[in-house]
Amino acid sequence: MLTDFMQMAIDQAKLAGVATYQNPQVGAVLVKDGHVLAQGYHHYFGGDHAEVDVLRQVTPEQARGATLFVTLEPCSHYGKTPPCSARIVAAGIRQVVIGQLDPHPIVGGKGRQYLLNHGVDVVTGCLTDKVRALNPHYNHFYVQQRPWITLKMAITLDGKINTETPTRTLVSNHASYIDSQCLRSQFQAILIGERTLTIDDPQLTVRLTAMVQPPVRLVVLNTSTVALNHRLVQDGQAPTWLLCRQAAASDDQLRNSPNVHVLIGNWTPAAISQLCVEQGWQSLLVEGGAHLQAEFVAAELIDEWVSYIAPMMIGGTGLPAVTGAAVMTPLTFEQPTVTCLGTNIRLRAVRKEVK
Amino acid sequence: MLTDFMQMAIDQAKLAGVATYQNPQVGAVLVKDGHVLAQGYHHYFGGDHAEVDVLRQVTPEQARGATLFVTLEPCSHYGKTPPCSARIVAAGIRQVVIGQLDPHPIVGGKGRQYLLNHGVDVVTGCLTDKVRALNPHYNHFYVQQRPWITLKMAITLDGKINTETPTRTLVSNHASYIDSQCLRSQFQAILIGERTLTIDDPQLTVRLTAMVQPPVRLVVLNTSTVALNHRLVQDGQAPTWLLCRQAAASDDQLRNSPNVHVLIGNWTPAAISQLCVEQGWQSLLVEGGAHLQAEFVAAELIDEWVSYIAPMMIGGTGLPAVTGAAVMTPLTFEQPTVTCLGTNIRLRAVRKEVK
Repeated sequence: MLTDFMQMAIDQAKLAGVATYQNPQVGAVLVKDGHVLAQGYHHYFGGDHAEVDVLRQVTPEQARGATLFVTLEPCSHYGKTPPCSARIVAAGIRQVVIGQLDPHPIVGGKGRQYLLNHGVDVVTGCLTDKVRALNPHYNHFYVQQRPWITLKMAITLDGKINTETPTRTLVSNHASYIDSQCLRSQFQAILIGERTLTIDDPQLTVRLTAMVQPPVRLVVLNTSTVALNHRLVQDGQAPTWLLCRQAAASDDQLRNSPNVHVLIGNWTPAAISQLCVEQGWQSLLVEGGAHLQAEFVAAELIDEWVSYIAPMMIGGTGLPAVTGAAVMTPLTFEQPTVTCLGTNIRLRAVRKEVK
Repeated sequence: MLTDFMQMAIDQAKLAGVATYQNPQVGAVLVKDGHVLAQGYHHYFGGDHAEVDVLRQVTPEQARGATLFVTLEPCSHYGKTPPCSARIVAAGIRQVVIGQLDPHPIVGGKGRQYLLNHGVDVVTGCLTDKVRALNPHYNHFYVQQRPWITLKMAITLDGKINTETPTRTLVSNHASYIDSQCLRSQFQAILIGERTLTIDDPQLTVRLTAMVQPPVRLVVLNTSTVALNHRLVQDGQAPTWLLCRQAAASDDQLRNSPNVHVLIGNWTPAAISQLCVEQGWQSLLVEGGAHLQAEFVAAELIDEWVSYIAPMMIGGTGLPAVTGAAVMTPLTFEQPTVTCLGTNIRLRAVRKEVK
């Protein structure tokens, strides 16, 4: 069955985890006479593509006349590696079964066309939904032309993130902390506002695993001055971009810090989304505070909501999770998924219009 | 095994559902030589007690020397029926196994003592936690000397109950509506604030089942005038108590309506709780709005939280579920239970200090 082999390719693709960074997770399986000759995947950003990973496991004799199952359309351009389409043709592969066409404009059907032009039998659209789910951020970025945006927060039963006094209130438990670190590792950029910076002094790093490409840390600020003594600009753990509304004397000083960028502009959610597009950051995790979240909701720049609900109540003067900017009409989401994390509950919901 | 027969008695007790009203659910099983002679329960408020329900199923001969399993301590007072303790002694029951002692001050160990004084062997504390869970409101009312108070609301993912404009926004789905009607049926009083009255014009009735003792409807108001044209005071479906801060000309007019009471006072959560104690209402469901909920949280008069979460967002200007009065320190709850109701999620959490 075609779907059985494609499922094997999907399982291969997942082995890479977040190591493929801005490249998609891709898996491939080489089959001849109903037998699997090789399984492979794209291991890490800059490494061999999945097609190459399987072809190097077999002899030229074995490859000739075989069928290649690959979750994503083979590439047709000279990037970090030679185009896979050309290699497939050169290897004498008879048939290629493709999970989904590549939404990246540099491929976008050209790989499939190259194969067809060279007499390779091509089947497309096998387990497409499952294959697309391998790379929701990548697909969204190239189809929607903007990053996948997730709003994440730790809240109480009554929907608060903090007490009224501007000190840090830890509402979530250790299981939620671990889960949110995992979540962070799947994003290419993380965003916070000025109040969150000054109250929490967060590192915004992924501390559970060593990441070759850690998420870029973005902070929206009035001026860069307030960032001077915070860990984000001092620890050098990941690139930090200070998105300031006004220029300040501290800008030049900070630009001399390794890994720190200072940009002056009118940093609306749309402008931040555009910055992600320009920088190739396919996914953005907005970690708060409440006003920044409200701005993204109001701009309808939200694809996913993740909340960690702690079994406590902060009451009527607590800071609501989302407060400030108004939406035009309420936004609707797909049915949420629920995960129990010890005494905490994790709710995840994907925007209804978004696939 | 003692616990097997007590479990049978628990299963019997549950058959009554909410029909026992201010009486507890009680089940009983009569056993002799390891065989069950009869099973029974307290069917409805004012009906036979569970002990009577089993004893009337057997001959005097059978009852003599038997063991009676009963979830709640047999009564010792002349109420709507003669005391069960005396009947048990008269029937020649050899042993009584009691699930829990009755916290009602009129019994409170006296039933057990009566049995002991008359030579009956008494075992107490069998499956006590399960037995107590039959009547959480009843037990709480007599142990804590105040009603079990549940705050209930329908909220969005971002913790809002309504848009900023004072019109009714339906955020929850039909499954949540059905579930909240079930919830309502388990309470003896339901409370709302003035804003909820004027915006929603709710009936606060249980519309899924015919109730002999429907929950009393309480509304906190500035004056009774605003209630004049609302369904609560017109439909006669259940008693309505208007808890007004100030007297008004409309008071006398409303007092002439059937089933309507008007009380003038300083209606703090503590005062409302005290009214429940005086009236014997063992459970109070606070259905909003946001300010009233905040007052109950601030007063720490909350035993349970139930929220129906709809997969939508109202954004930064939406009305938070709890807003207004401040708490001294955050309140903590036991691990929440989660129920999926179609696309909605129901979260229920019980206050940590409360058993």
